[in-house]
Parts: sequence; structure tokens; C-alpha cells
Amino acid sequence: MARRRQIYEGKAKILYEGPEPGTLIQYFKDDATAFNAQKKGTINGKGVLNNRISEHVFTLLGQIGVPTHFIRRLNMREQLIRQVEIVPIEVVVRNVVAGSLSKRLGIEEGQQLPRTIVEYYYKDDALGDPMVTDEHILAFGWAAQDELHDMADMAIRVNDFLAGLFAGIGIRLVDFKLEFGRIWENDFSRIILADEISPDGCRLWDMATNEKLDKDRFRRDLGGEVEAYQEVARRLGLLPEGGDTAVLDMETHRKKRGR
Amino acid sequence: MARRRQIYEGKAKILYEGPEPGTLIQYFKDDATAFNAQKKGTINGKGVLNNRISEHVFTLLGQIGVPTHFIRRLNMREQLIRQVEIVPIEVVVRNVVAGSLSKRLGIEEGQQLPRTIVEYYYKDDALGDPMVTDEHILAFGWAAQDELHDMADMAIRVNDFLAGLFAGIGIRLVDFKLEFGRIWENDFSRIILADEISPDGCRLWDMATNEKLDKDRFRRDLGGEVEAYQEVARRLGLLPEGGDTAVLDMETHRKKRGR
Repeated sequence: MARRRQIYEGKAKILYEGPEPGTLIQYFKDDATAFNAQKKGTINGKGVLNNRISEHVFTLLGQIGVPTHFIRRLNMREQLIRQVEIVPIEVVVRNVVAGSLSKRLGIEEGQQLPRTIVEYYYKDDALGDPMVTDEHILAFGWAAQDELHDMADMAIRVNDFLAGLFAGIGIRLVDFKLEFGRIWENDFSRIILADEISPDGCRLWDMATNEKLDKDRFRRDLGGEVEAYQEVARRLGLLPEGGDTAVLDMETHRKKRGR
Repeated sequence: MARRRQIYEGKAKILYEGPEPGTLIQYFKDDATAFNAQKKGTINGKGVLNNRISEHVFTLLGQIGVPTHFIRRLNMREQLIRQVEIVPIEVVVRNVVAGSLSKRLGIEEGQQLPRTIVEYYYKDDALGDPMVTDEHILAFGWAAQDELHDMADMAIRVNDFLAGLFAGIGIRLVDFKLEFGRIWENDFSRIILADEISPDGCRLWDMATNEKLDKDRFRRDLGGEVEAYQEVARRLGLLPEGGDTAVLDMETHRKKRGR
């Protein structure tokens, strides 16, 4: 098969030209980075799991009326998505104190927040993705007032839904990151959910043990990254009970034969 | 005179118990600090000038209906103020890119902002006064929603007034910091402007030469700190033309005799 034109390569994903205008193919890599890519590594099979988890979550969000870029999964590592103009803002939703919030404000990790906090970070690796506020976003035109409003509204809806989804499978949704994109329809643009939702961009703690089931295992050298991602997928019903490595084994097998 | 009870000593000011309940005496020191007190020094006469400048600005703000803690100036370095419960948030208003905004977002200093930006910083030296948003302020209860609204409204009014005041004397108001306090009246609290407004907490650039007339002269080792503060006071009509050092000389004289 002729290799498709690569549009963009990020830290964990590659975007290729899609089969028709307005579409892209999103390829999930096993590459893992942390601390603004100062730490790099590989989590074998992560891309396969994130592709599957993100498909599942985006499909469910679509069903409750949150518009997303997701069209359909194509194969183990790829999904067809709508092409969007990415808003250069990472939207972080926090329910429990962890990570940078804990460090910046000197509050112990694990403390339940009195209310959900929505934060914005300007997507710029060279600057270390600095936190910004709606004031900066509007002043510099990174998003318009109505777009920001839609993003915040959707972020809260996604949080409510995901908090429920994960609570149902014994997982505490500590925080997560969203990205949004702009699509154009007859000279009007609107904002839809883009990127992915997976243990790469969420903090997910087992409710019973507080065990981390997310990328913090990689950030903090805790080990067991793949097992944690698999556990999330398994609880979501995406891996057969007891057959947790089947998907990955199958891919390894295919790789050996050549794709 | 019996020394009054000291309530609080900050980096540039000391608060003493006032002559009647609900009042304090705010004493202006010559101490200067920068970069979260990693850099320390003295600007001789700064306290005298800031006391006078802040008196002037707060009096004018009171006249346009911005409530402040200022009651009256008592002497060269002291003013009588209302006792408030300080809101632990520094409100920064920016019209032109400078300082931390320039560094954090990688935008050149001196660029006029497309619109005024209001930022909030959590007052905590140990944490380095981290930037926060209304989300953090409300979640952690540092201010209530209506208080934050009042603070933002007043900050914009102060900015409009000060931008005009300084434009009239050939000075560009680049940015400035405000602090607010809560006062209680019959079980209800309201927010009033507190602290000070002086070249310690403002960036003031000469419109013709772009010369800095503020604490950046100290932060950046530019020299001429006192002269810059005096220049601001003189243009505001607070020092007689040509007699710029008279006030300071007089104080030096008093100090020599003992107070």
C-alpha cells in the first residue's frame, strides 16, 4: 500500500491525509513523553490500547451529544477523524489535586477539590505549555469568546460523563486534558472535541487501592505501564476477561509477518 | 512616644495598630525586593515618595467612587488606613507586554496588548506567588464570586483612570498590581482597594523615551531608582519643580536629630 502523506507528527500520534477531503487518519504510537518531552520512552502496545479506549469514549460522548472529530476506527492503531483547525489550548479539568496543581499551589496530592477546576494551557513546547487564562486566550485571539464558552461547557459535560463512566468501573477520575478543534461549515465555524481521551491524558486512580492506572506510572517510574492501560481497557469492556494480552499478541504476530 | 504595636511587616511596608478600632497605620519602608525577595536592597527615600504618590492616587480614586482603605496621610512615611482582611490575591492589570508575561508567553516586551489583560496571583512567597485563575480562587474560597467580580470591575476602573492620569503627564501605564481587602459592616462584607499604588507595583514608561520610571530600574540594575520615583512624583505635581530632593533632605535632617 502506498504510504499516505503525513500531515503532522506529535509526541504520541501521527496524522496522515485521509481518504477524502476534510478527513485525516490518526495513528497512535507507542512513544511516551513526559515533562515537556524531557523524558522519553516507549510503552509497548500503548498505541493499540489508546486507539481502542479513545474510540470507545468518543463514541459514548457522541451519543450524549458532545460533537467530536471521531468518525470510526480503521485498524489496531488508526482511526478516521474529521480534520479540524486545532485550538492551541489544552483544557485541563481537575476533580482531585494532583500533579502540577499540587506543586504550584502547595496542596497535597489526593485532596478532593471543593469544586471542579477548569484550566487552560497554551500549547507551545518551547514555552513549556504555560498556564493561561481566558484573558490571555481572548487578548491574543487563540479562541473567540463564544468558542471558549463552548469549550468550557463541553469540558464540564465530558467531566460529568467520564466521572460517571469511570466511577462505574471502580476508577476515580482525578483530572484529564482535552483538546478542541474548529470545523468550518458554510462560512461558519464551530468547536468540536478533538485529539484523544486515554490514560495518556487522564489521571485515573483505582478507587479501592489508589493505584495509578495512567501515564503517571511512566512519569514517576512506577513500572507496569502497559498493565495499567490494559486494566482500564479491560474494565471498560474492551478486552476479554483473562485475555488481556491477546490484542497485543495478535499485533506482534502481524508485525513479524510484515504488514 | 510609646512605640505602637506592630501588626505585620511586609517587604516594603509595616502595619501598626491604629489610633482607633478598625484603623491601622501603614508605614512605608525604603526596602526594595524583587524576584520573590531573592534580590534585596534599599532605595533611599522610596518610602517617602511612595507614601505621597499612593496618597495622591488613592485620593483621586476615591473621588471617582472607587472605595479604598486610605483615610489620610499622617506624616512623611505613614498613612492612616482602614483595617481590612486582605484577599490573598494580587490582581495584575496589563496594557503592554512586559515582565513575566513576556517570558511566559514568549512575546516581546513593549508590544501593546490587543486588549487589557487582568491576571490573578496567589499571594504566597513560599510558592513564588503562582498565577491562578478565577477557577482556583473560587474552588479554594480565597474570594467569593461576587467579590472577584467586584475586584475585576474595580481593577478595570482603576486601569482606565490611571492610564488617563499617567497619559496626561507623558507616562505609559504598562501594567500594575492591586490588592484588595474585605471590610465588615453589620454582618455584611464588601471589597475595597487596599495596599498602595506606587512605582513599586506599576510599570511606568516615559512616553517619549521609553525610560523606565519604576521598580524595574532596581530589578534590572539600571540605577537611578530614586530619581525615577521622584520624576513620577514631580510630574504628578507632588514635588516642587526643581526642588526634587527637598522632601528627602528634610527627612534626612529629621532623622539626624532623632524622631
